Amino acid sequence: MSVKLHIPGVNDMTTETKNTFALNQWYVAALSTELVDQPLARTLLNQAVVLYRDDSGTVWALDDRCCHRALPLSHGTLEGKAIRCGYHGMLYDGTGQCIDVPGQNTIPKRAKVNSYCIEEKDGLVWIWFGDEGQSEPLNSAPDYPVHTSGEYVWGGGVFYYAAPYQLIHDNLLDLSHLGYVHLLTIGGDPNTHMTADMKTTVDGDCVTVVRHMRDSTPPPTYLAAYPFNDKIDRWQEIEFMPSHLRIWTGGVNIGEGHLDDPNRGGFHMRGFHGVTPETESSAHYIWTIATNPQTDSDAILNKVVDQTALTFEEDKVVIEAQYQNMLKFGNEPMVSIHVDAGATHARRIIEKLRTRA
Amino acid sequence: MSVKLHIPGVNDMTTETKNTFALNQWYVAALSTELVDQPLARTLLNQAVVLYRDDSGTVWALDDRCCHRALPLSHGTLEGKAIRCGYHGMLYDGTGQCIDVPGQNTIPKRAKVNSYCIEEKDGLVWIWFGDEGQSEPLNSAPDYPVHTSGEYVWGGGVFYYAAPYQLIHDNLLDLSHLGYVHLLTIGGDPNTHMTADMKTTVDGDCVTVVRHMRDSTPPPTYLAAYPFNDKIDRWQEIEFMPSHLRIWTGGVNIGEGHLDDPNRGGFHMRGFHGVTPETESSAHYIWTIATNPQTDSDAILNKVVDQTALTFEEDKVVIEAQYQNMLKFGNEPMVSIHVDAGATHARRIIEKLRTRA
Amino acid sequence: MSVKLHIPGVNDMTTETKNTFALNQWYVAALSTELVDQPLARTLLNQAVVLYRDDSGTVWALDDRCCHRALPLSHGTLEGKAIRCGYHGMLYDGTGQCIDVPGQNTIPKRAKVNSYCIEEKDGLVWIWFGDEGQSEPLNSAPDYPVHTSGEYVWGGGVFYYAAPYQLIHDNLLDLSHLGYVHLLTIGGDPNTHMTADMKTTVDGDCVTVVRHMRDSTPPPTYLAAYPFNDKIDRWQEIEFMPSHLRIWTGGVNIGEGHLDDPNRGGFHMRGFHGVTPETESSAHYIWTIATNPQTDSDAILNKVVDQTALTFEEDKVVIEAQYQNMLKFGNEPMVSIHVDAGATHARRIIEKLRTRA
Repeated sequence: MSVKLHIPGVNDMTTETKNTFALNQWYVAALSTELVDQPLARTLLNQAVVLYRDDSGTVWALDDRCCHRALPLSHGTLEGKAIRCGYHGMLYDGTGQCIDVPGQNTIPKRAKVNSYCIEEKDGLVWIWFGDEGQSEPLNSAPDYPVHTSGEYVWGGGVFYYAAPYQLIHDNLLDLSHLGYVHLLTIGGDPNTHMTADMKTTVDGDCVTVVRHMRDSTPPPTYLAAYPFNDKIDRWQEIEFMPSHLRIWTGGVNIGEGHLDDPNRGGFHMRGFHGVTPETESSAHYIWTIATNPQTDSDAILNKVVDQTALTFEEDKVVIEAQYQNMLKFGNEPMVSIHVDAGATHARRIIEKLRTRA
Repeated sequence: MSVKLHIPGVNDMTTETKNTFALNQWYVAALSTELVDQPLARTLLNQAVVLYRDDSGTVWALDDRCCHRALPLSHGTLEGKAIRCGYHGMLYDGTGQCIDVPGQNTIPKRAKVNSYCIEEKDGLVWIWFGDEGQSEPLNSAPDYPVHTSGEYVWGGGVFYYAAPYQLIHDNLLDLSHLGYVHLLTIGGDPNTHMTADMKTTVDGDCVTVVRHMRDSTPPPTYLAAYPFNDKIDRWQEIEFMPSHLRIWTGGVNIGEGHLDDPNRGGFHMRGFHGVTPETESSAHYIWTIATNPQTDSDAILNKVVDQTALTFEEDKVVIEAQYQNMLKFGNEPMVSIHVDAGATHARRIIEKLRTRA
Repeated sequence: MSVKLHIPGVNDMTTETKNTFALNQWYVAALSTELVDQPLARTLLNQAVVLYRDDSGTVWALDDRCCHRALPLSHGTLEGKAIRCGYHGMLYDGTGQCIDVPGQNTIPKRAKVNSYCIEEKDGLVWIWFGDEGQSEPLNSAPDYPVHTSGEYVWGGGVFYYAAPYQLIHDNLLDLSHLGYVHLLTIGGDPNTHMTADMKTTVDGDCVTVVRHMRDSTPPPTYLAAYPFNDKIDRWQEIEFMPSHLRIWTGGVNIGEGHLDDPNRGGFHMRGFHGVTPETESSAHYIWTIATNPQTDSDAILNKVVDQTALTFEEDKVVIEAQYQNMLKFGNEPMVSIHVDAGATHARRIIEKLRTRA
């Protein structure tokens, strides 16, 4: 059961036979809504990139460094399908090729920057870095029909974590913390969470944790968004994949639905959680939350998004404090308890995917 | 006379034969008034601890790290005699033993954290770390009857210094700086301070510096707190011990008291100065000031406490600037002058007490 | 053409055979107006100095560290021709000799600090550090008659750069950036700048870049300060010396003056740019701007100074972002373009002057 986290300053991250990150994965680079008419600077997996949407709507990702004097291209301006540096005006197309050097007719042969594969799907912008020799994606970027099926309304945001990405995995795979950390929103009675029916399964690089909490008191966010009668049957279905998680939670009036029925009614919160490392010790948390209001759709969506943001801010405080404390105390042993099963599987998968070919 | 300070970045602190700090000492961890109904996080001698007062009034100190996921226990909540982690709810008693793991019946054998000896006396909370093999105190924590004798009223505070603790020792053992640094409060004419009668004695691990400044002008704080006629005879009695200093200063109308008489009258300011290293390069300064108002006790106490706080803020500015400058200039020689005698003795004592058994 | 910058964190600065900086030069330490009745702390070429003007008007520079307890002397107070430490009152004259130790009659032999040669000329305070064995200046500090000839009015300021000084050289020697960075003030049409007639000459340790942009649209600052008819002939004459640059820019109504005539009329902006390293990775930018208002001298000078400050703030943003990005991307190659000629010569000169005798 003892699978160590790779925590900078505590355990070293990279070895001769391991990459720093699981590289052959699609990672979430941004929400589609973040890219309108301005370039966006974001460091992803230790690589500073500039993302931009060209005038035909296509999104591009380049190294965020002009090859002339190293100014970030994200300080520049968009022109048609290209981006122009804000220092001496060199112009790059979406493949990273320099296509104009103001004041001279020839373009130096070396005047280009790296570009990365982008796929935009269902409101998410995905990026592929790839392992040595695998800059072409091995597969298509993931679908996320929750955003586009019409069953749900949704919103989201991007949080910055001054903590390693695997601590976010731990947090999301172990929702027993809701009763201690999130009392004001989606928590509820701690004992309900700690004694939930829990089933953990592993399928390839995916871990699923299903938790059922029958006959429990609906927490504040649930009561604010849905007309429950009294006690409810709650579910939490957590799917972990190496670069993101999907978490479907919700509740039905007690006895009114089978928690195993995929078409069950009641109140739904479907979370998407892109957990994209910035560096070994920091991460972007690119999230959305979708719900199914019975009435007054805008107001309920706003409430659900606001309370979700509040909940994630509580997680951020805990996880950043946890990381600072890990740095302070160093590599002291951690004692596992029964709710850690899903997180332990996830760590094994990341460990395996970091291994070099 | 040349005893070097151990200043991180200038001189190394620890060697094979030296501990980082003088360990077999009681250090001040907190003022009693700091511990009411919330846990207090404080790093003392490089150890992050959580301090809390249980529901029977007893104060406990544990390593500030849950053994499960390393969250600081100081993020948790107090329950009876115990403290519960704010992430997944593990509960610890004051000895550091985990006594509840929510959601499971058995408590893992390794589920415990370190605890430290605490004694609370006369309004001060003392902690003992001890050298290798000496976690039990060698003696009882110091008394400080000034707080409890009824002769004085007192108040205090806790200051944080981004500077090594020994620079605070230097400052307090060499009160000749009053005429340059504290003109607005307890200073007075610089020459009076620099030419005071001064007598330095060493007794075991204690250094005493007694300074008499006869026929001097009372400084602003004295005039604000006591109805002096005109010129005064001032005294400063400084007692240094390895973890704290006691400084008794005051003045009588000129000729009205013997400065050597322990029952002399006049205006008294009795300072307690707990100088507890946080790390090699930072310190907590836990201080109180006691005085003997002739009238209007509350107003005069407030004035004396406020002016003392102001004075200590002036010291903090000087000492932090001094340390930054030592880092900037590195290990350049320091030239000693006659007022440094007490500080030099104190450095020798610390040096001796850092030596390993 | 490939002359590397020495950028801390990217290329190492110092080697066995190179000094960190070109030392046998007069550097600008301050504007004369900065030194009135208070000491000024400033780190120059890695040396923390205190500058002060004594009561006879002479400026002195000492190591900013009292030899007793290492407090910066800049925390002290001025007394006649000397400066007194703000901790225990040691008094130093302008040569660095301690001339008073309060409370004792003899002054320890070692009680002194280093002093540096200062020359004050034409509103600028110059300092000489010198190479090993060359603490005496090899020549007199530069004149700058623009400040004193009576032809111009002028103002200035001091900016702090969190970036290596050579990136400021690059910026000033390559004014083609005006069309991209300074559109709101002294920019104008980018193509005008990128296709200017440009002539670069080297004479000893001085590089001159002369650029003529005929028949161009006057930029906002020009229009605000001078009654141009329509299109103008612009010039930029940049003189680089190892510690400072002089940049004479301006414009005349099209066809109304010969751009090579040193007595030409029109609108003038004459910039003085002292680029004094603070450390390898930071710099002071001590600048003035002089102009020749036709009417309403004060208002036009204020406008020119304000717009120049705004322009330099834009440069600071670019250069600091450039340096951060160089740290992020490390030692990746830079592609040179034709406008880099002047900067490349300047780098060669600095490289040569850093070589040890």
